[in-house]
Amino acid sequence: MEEKKRTEIAELGEFGLIDKLTGKFYLHNNSSKTGVGDDAAVIDPKEDSGGNYSLLSTDMLLEGVDFDLVYFPLKHLGYKAVVVAASDILAMNGRPKQLTVQLGVSSKISVQQLEELYEGIGAGCEDYGIDLVGGDTRASVNGLVVGVSVLGTVGKDSIAFRSGARENDLICITGDLGAAYMGLHLLEREKRALEGHPDPNPDFKGYEYLLRRQLKPSARLDIVEALQENSLVPTSMIDLSDGLASDLLQICKSSDCGARIYLDRLPIARETYDLCEKMHIDPVVAALNGGDDHELLFTVPLEKQESITKIGGIDVIGHITPTGTGAMLVTPDGGEIAITAPAIR
Amino acid sequence: MEEKKRTEIAELGEFGLIDKLTGKFYLHNNSSKTGVGDDAAVIDPKEDSGGNYSLLSTDMLLEGVDFDLVYFPLKHLGYKAVVVAASDILAMNGRPKQLTVQLGVSSKISVQQLEELYEGIGAGCEDYGIDLVGGDTRASVNGLVVGVSVLGTVGKDSIAFRSGARENDLICITGDLGAAYMGLHLLEREKRALEGHPDPNPDFKGYEYLLRRQLKPSARLDIVEALQENSLVPTSMIDLSDGLASDLLQICKSSDCGARIYLDRLPIARETYDLCEKMHIDPVVAALNGGDDHELLFTVPLEKQESITKIGGIDVIGHITPTGTGAMLVTPDGGEIAITAPAIR
Repeated sequence: MEEKKRTEIAELGEFGLIDKLTGKFYLHNNSSKTGVGDDAAVIDPKEDSGGNYSLLSTDMLLEGVDFDLVYFPLKHLGYKAVVVAASDILAMNGRPKQLTVQLGVSSKISVQQLEELYEGIGAGCEDYGIDLVGGDTRASVNGLVVGVSVLGTVGKDSIAFRSGARENDLICITGDLGAAYMGLHLLEREKRALEGHPDPNPDFKGYEYLLRRQLKPSARLDIVEALQENSLVPTSMIDLSDGLASDLLQICKSSDCGARIYLDRLPIARETYDLCEKMHIDPVVAALNGGDDHELLFTVPLEKQESITKIGGIDVIGHITPTGTGAMLVTPDGGEIAITAPAIR
Repeated sequence: MEEKKRTEIAELGEFGLIDKLTGKFYLHNNSSKTGVGDDAAVIDPKEDSGGNYSLLSTDMLLEGVDFDLVYFPLKHLGYKAVVVAASDILAMNGRPKQLTVQLGVSSKISVQQLEELYEGIGAGCEDYGIDLVGGDTRASVNGLVVGVSVLGTVGKDSIAFRSGARENDLICITGDLGAAYMGLHLLEREKRALEGHPDPNPDFKGYEYLLRRQLKPSARLDIVEALQENSLVPTSMIDLSDGLASDLLQICKSSDCGARIYLDRLPIARETYDLCEKMHIDPVVAALNGGDDHELLFTVPLEKQESITKIGGIDVIGHITPTGTGAMLVTPDGGEIAITAPAIR
């Protein structure tokens, strides 16, 4: 995995390790009064304009479940951890501000590899204007564990809960669906194909987009900013981490409503279609159940259609229906298929 | 491990599981605007009196490193996770308010076991007035992982950093040292002794205190409240999670100072001495390097000695010395031993 000099974590001691990993980080936000290095970080919520409420969210990435170190570079893993955390705050229509990182590291991980991980965390913090303010690094006898918690701010009048969708609201989605899921399939396939190969050199030509969606996803800060510029507050919002089917059902459950989405309006990228065809996977299944997209699913009142179209990069895929009517996928011939959530993942 | 009915996590689905585990939790703090159930929790920092600053901290407990499920009941583990998280906020002289929990659960864990874990989390939240406001539960292919992040509040004028210790300040410590460490030794010894035993029934008689310190620790909310009642603000403070030696060195490093602590003033419980003698462990080593005590180590100006004594339950174990003089343990005969931190744990 590495050709460079290997330093064992034990050589540095805890002080030295934390200094080495976080020494280059600087603070972006006035609200971050202190960074890493005490029992807790100090934050002044008053310093963030519009910060009437704080938002707190947490996520965990586990080796062997959420990532495989055989094909997931540590720098990308660090970046993705920040994106996953930021996405939850954006899904409340808020702005992420402070981040803490928990690491469980096995002895197979070197200091150089942890530096790569933190390089990715740093790049993510930079891209989203987030401050690393704390963490907990422990030895793990099992695999690598990366936990992230993020604190953000949101104006009292612009919070988007999951529970605010109303009948006839438009169901909107950013970006496209299923690409991260197909990127994962591609990586898994190449891993199997190259197992035991002395000089693995997988060919991902033509599928760079799918790989990027899996290995270097984005959180939609741009969309949250565009909504604000256009004075649009979603009636409900959620980030697509578990897949459209599961996340739409969350909105329906929290808002006590039904939904109709149209199969031919689901945004699916050309590369996703191509690989689905080659791997005999239904692209609609990839779009509905593939997770990790970190796009935003939200609802707006019907009269906002024009404003939404103006922003660009957002597709209206259906509308909210009365309570008790279920969540349905409408096929081009007018048929309706009930949307169900996959088992826990 | 269990005789009761076993429900597999997959039977409930993600919605059902979260409802089952967190349905009974209620909110204690006005600042907690929402609980579990959206992308992020909503918190109003203005609602907490004295809450001029927010505090954010994070910790992780890993199976096989921080706990062994052979002897660590899940209910106690949940409770301990809350204590560990609360302790970091108390160590800044703040009050813990909101908690998020990340779980990585392997398929060997049943719904009933997760309910036990949450029962402990609930009991901890109750004892410290903390609200569970979010979490992330994922499948783990390795051991059980419990991550906790906690948000708290502190008045601007009463924060205690690690960096404020000044020459001649008194070094104070709450409770006693090394008991949690000896409790762990006891549990490990019994585990080895009973391995393969058909009807294990270990005898811990006489060591109940040591077991309690390991399995059901306390965070010192009482001390932080007593300090406030007596208008005392520590010049520096840290919680004893890594052991006195390591944590005192953190204060010396952050405050750029030295320290002298006196061996014969180290508070060590009778049971700790007894078991140390039986197991041929130096009680001073247990006191200096045993972690998990979650007591508070803090400094106050020399003139506050009387006020500190009045509170009770606090021992003055030494004083702060000028920068460059090192951290020293003074023996009863006047000898000085340099205090060094053990390797990363």
